Amino acid sequence: MESLGKSAKIAAREAGKLGIEDKNRGLLTIADELVSQTNFILEENQKDIKYAKEKGVTTALIDRLRLTEERIADIAHGLRVIAKLDDPIGKVEEMKVRPNGLQVGKMRVPLGVIGIIYESRPNVTADAFGLCFKAGNAVILRGGSDAIHSNLAITGAIKEGLRRENLPEDIIQLVEDTSRETATKMMSLHEYIDVLIPRGGASLIASVVENSTIPVIETGTGNCHIYVDEYADVGMAVSIIENAKTQRLGVCNTCESLVIHKEILIHALPPIAEMLKKHNVEIRGDEKVVSLVHEILEASDEDWGTEYLDSIISIKTVDSLEEGIAHINTYNSGHSEAIITNNYHNAMKFQKEVDAAAVFINASTRFTDGFEFGFGAEIGISTQKLHARGPMGLEALTTTKFIIFGDGQIR
Amino acid sequence: MESLGKSAKIAAREAGKLGIEDKNRGLLTIADELVSQTNFILEENQKDIKYAKEKGVTTALIDRLRLTEERIADIAHGLRVIAKLDDPIGKVEEMKVRPNGLQVGKMRVPLGVIGIIYESRPNVTADAFGLCFKAGNAVILRGGSDAIHSNLAITGAIKEGLRRENLPEDIIQLVEDTSRETATKMMSLHEYIDVLIPRGGASLIASVVENSTIPVIETGTGNCHIYVDEYADVGMAVSIIENAKTQRLGVCNTCESLVIHKEILIHALPPIAEMLKKHNVEIRGDEKVVSLVHEILEASDEDWGTEYLDSIISIKTVDSLEEGIAHINTYNSGHSEAIITNNYHNAMKFQKEVDAAAVFINASTRFTDGFEFGFGAEIGISTQKLHARGPMGLEALTTTKFIIFGDGQIR
Repeated sequence: MESLGKSAKIAAREAGKLGIEDKNRGLLTIADELVSQTNFILEENQKDIKYAKEKGVTTALIDRLRLTEERIADIAHGLRVIAKLDDPIGKVEEMKVRPNGLQVGKMRVPLGVIGIIYESRPNVTADAFGLCFKAGNAVILRGGSDAIHSNLAITGAIKEGLRRENLPEDIIQLVEDTSRETATKMMSLHEYIDVLIPRGGASLIASVVENSTIPVIETGTGNCHIYVDEYADVGMAVSIIENAKTQRLGVCNTCESLVIHKEILIHALPPIAEMLKKHNVEIRGDEKVVSLVHEILEASDEDWGTEYLDSIISIKTVDSLEEGIAHINTYNSGHSEAIITNNYHNAMKFQKEVDAAAVFINASTRFTDGFEFGFGAEIGISTQKLHARGPMGLEALTTTKFIIFGDGQIR
Repeated sequence: MESLGKSAKIAAREAGKLGIEDKNRGLLTIADELVSQTNFILEENQKDIKYAKEKGVTTALIDRLRLTEERIADIAHGLRVIAKLDDPIGKVEEMKVRPNGLQVGKMRVPLGVIGIIYESRPNVTADAFGLCFKAGNAVILRGGSDAIHSNLAITGAIKEGLRRENLPEDIIQLVEDTSRETATKMMSLHEYIDVLIPRGGASLIASVVENSTIPVIETGTGNCHIYVDEYADVGMAVSIIENAKTQRLGVCNTCESLVIHKEILIHALPPIAEMLKKHNVEIRGDEKVVSLVHEILEASDEDWGTEYLDSIISIKTVDSLEEGIAHINTYNSGHSEAIITNNYHNAMKFQKEVDAAAVFINASTRFTDGFEFGFGAEIGISTQKLHARGPMGLEALTTTKFIIFGDGQIR
């Protein structure tokens, strides 16, 4: 692991010097290489799938693992899209002249070496590489053992593309030994890795946060709420909740809990419950909600804090906007929260006081996404406050340095 | 510790809602309160000094610990300066309209609860509180056991000022039990503390980085270099090196190592060595340097990586700019690096390729400082790449959230 870290650090210096044309040329050649190696990648992927089936893993997991000709074409397309994005590197912000004549500016530069620890989706291998590389970084990828053949094949195609364009191959390093020990060792390579981004389930993320001595960007957990204000348009509430809860069940920006003002409960709850029933979403409510909807369970305290990722939703009644905000700030995971209201003051108060990466007024929480926000790409959604918060595009994979132009100044 | 974390988190919500006038009024009243409690604070400080003397600590440490009427006036003045700074909170950057009509913006908001772990300077107690508070945060301070009486007295005056202005007292919490156990416990309060900033020596910082599960901002270590290019103005080099090495020995932006191009060595080294000798700075050089300067030691490999914080400097000869950059990128601590040159291309190459928080052309490394860069304040100098890099002003104590204005949009 240590020698892998060292070569990544050396490669990162080279990556940081590359111009935009070199990087884009590399990305396009790699996209072609992935497509031309489709058959080989699919063969290797079959090995992973065969092994997973023998291990008896779930169909959902096998589906995540599976590559097809179309999926490989999508991966290649993703790299071509990244090639079209603006290069964040070298942009100078806030150049100022100090009284002593020093010019002080802030230049955007690569982070250096980015470590990604992820689970079974082999498409992450190419996506994460593409974004890190475009932002001038080297990347160390540590995927799951169940996808190792697919990841090796994809990494091989990427390295071949880099070779063809005379770009340093060590810009991408795949950890081939997928044991727990190498992951732990990777989390201690403080000297060589500048940031670790875990991508996967809650337990993977918690383990990285717990064990890493490298700065970590936490991603993913979303216990997202929609607050239906006393002054909500009920039709809009139903439409937004339908979208936020039922469009996709298993993603982090899906709504997991509703908070409804008591004054609108009797008008809003019946159509919301009917819509949820139509989509086979189970409701767990507080006492008032249970008294208004047939045959539903009462929510426990645990429900308020649960990201179901399933066709279940909790519903809580509150006496005031303040109580609603306090409830959300107590149980949310800092991801995405929305208010439905026609009242200007309540909208602004909610937006100001709710503590989350994205706070929506009259829109679906499903919009929390790098593409929907117009970044053209996304490496994940940060639920922490340091460095990057919310959907992370290329800029989240960079840092800044102060550049100072003098002509002999001393202090 | 846990209940302390909880009350800080609750107080942080209140702090985040305060307007600029409330915060400034609070800072000014606290400044007055500190001045009016001068006698009591000095009495308490005497207890710390008496205990330190009994323990037989160094004079330098006692000097850092000691408060005087003037130092307390300085602390109060510092808070009044913070009151004059612009409020970073609420500023919206990059508001964009998406094709579906959603308006997506990024609003600057407080981080929440900031933990500061520091050593013996009691002035940090008020400085750190003032900056964190102005940026809308609550703060948990864990100072050293040797300054506990002084810290309690200063915190008492701050709380009294907050009370007088009807501001929530729990915005500042001092950890009264200064045992190792409480520090360790504090580093695990991931649920209540949003970021930890250690301020102190290298071993304190290393221990926090190693043990904390909370995101940490590393500060302070500075193994800063000055590269004297082949095309340097020798007079300017001498003047800048004199300033960067000798103005203050024990601070992180002091120059610890010179890298000199071989073509200028014979012209530049004699006047540099003479100036250093005048200031009683010991030189440790490579073979070429040793052959040119009388009675100096040869530098070991360890010297290249050492932040002396003392009247010692290392000098290395290189054959090219590239070798100089590579040497600096190998041994530096990511703080401040400078080139002295009249050559445009070499200046730009150095600035681009040296990996550090601040890269200077023809100016002293001593300028890496929040005040010198025009931030009006400084909480420390970050030597890491995530979140904040280089001198940290108020903005480093904030984060952003996405705010989204919709009128019913669904995905």
